[in-house]
Amino acid sequence: MSEGARQIEELIALMARLPGLGPRSARRAVLHMIKKRAGLMTPLAQSLAEVARDARECLSCGNIGTDEVCAICTNPKRGNGQICVVEDVADLWAMERGRAFGGRYHVLGGTLSALDDVGPDDLRIPRLIERVARDGIEEVILALNATVDGQTTAHYIAGELAPMAREGHVKITSLAQGVPIGGELDYLDDGTISAALSARKSF
Amino acid sequence: MSEGARQIEELIALMARLPGLGPRSARRAVLHMIKKRAGLMTPLAQSLAEVARDARECLSCGNIGTDEVCAICTNPKRGNGQICVVEDVADLWAMERGRAFGGRYHVLGGTLSALDDVGPDDLRIPRLIERVARDGIEEVILALNATVDGQTTAHYIAGELAPMAREGHVKITSLAQGVPIGGELDYLDDGTISAALSARKSF
Repeated sequence: MSEGARQIEELIALMARLPGLGPRSARRAVLHMIKKRAGLMTPLAQSLAEVARDARECLSCGNIGTDEVCAICTNPKRGNGQICVVEDVADLWAMERGRAFGGRYHVLGGTLSALDDVGPDDLRIPRLIERVARDGIEEVILALNATVDGQTTAHYIAGELAPMAREGHVKITSLAQGVPIGGELDYLDDGTISAALSARKSF
Repeated sequence: MSEGARQIEELIALMARLPGLGPRSARRAVLHMIKKRAGLMTPLAQSLAEVARDARECLSCGNIGTDEVCAICTNPKRGNGQICVVEDVADLWAMERGRAFGGRYHVLGGTLSALDDVGPDDLRIPRLIERVARDGIEEVILALNATVDGQTTAHYIAGELAPMAREGHVKITSLAQGVPIGGELDYLDDGTISAALSARKSF
């Protein structure tokens, strides 16, 4: 970094704090933006300022958007009695890219973790129970990550919903586990293969 | 991406245009920034807007800074009669990180390239010749990349400076080629090994 260009140094330091960028790629990105000032740098500065001002968590599901209640929660077509529970907004976006789910979501904001001292009240779990009871939800689809913490959280939520499930008010399901589309057996871990085998279906 | 969050989608699309980021890492970066709004996102938006407004090429050497003439060109201690010629601002920054050079720079802004139709007048070559003649430069250090285009450009510049060099006004040098510090021979290409061998020195 050349002497005296303090502003540029500060920008590089900020860029280097983004996930996926280090000091070297931050420098490259900054030089690239300076070369594309009108087409990229100025619009990006404006867009960042707008999103920083307007982005907010949906009061109902925890999705990130620019309204008090997100577009999915206010879309009447999506009020089909299904709620898909995900850990994080990134997972909600991934589900939406799949275009296979027509209901609403509930973003927990993490997983239970004894190690990190995260309990049910630190997540949006009480709010989920409330939504299920109040909105007459028929199915809760647990789409948590297939990690230890994800599965622990899924079991905890299933336990909390068990009284309503026993009375037949709500069905609790989870995503199928198996071979990913395009996946090669040789590259899959043993756990996935044995899960796919025990959940095999007639061809 | 969830429905309706147009601003956030636009921000992700802009971020994905940065070198080193794709759609996936752009989404991650945007979610990370939304979580660190006050500490990262707002300062980054301001910093980008400031640099987009203030960044400019130094009229003398082509370095990027925020003044008409950069801090290196105006620093009297660096007027030691040496000019280091580099292709790009990123190379100037790399030289500065090495902290080994105490003179000034000249940023060409690229290399000669018949294929891409880049001639001497498209680079800052005429301006370099002018600086060398006018400022009583004693040494021009060619620090161009060890690529075909870089070396072609180095030879062209050496040819342009040859009349002044013959009269003894200016010495033309280039960076040494050899084994990088910490480099293992087994991982080096043949060209580097043979260059290092022919430039061997007594131990």
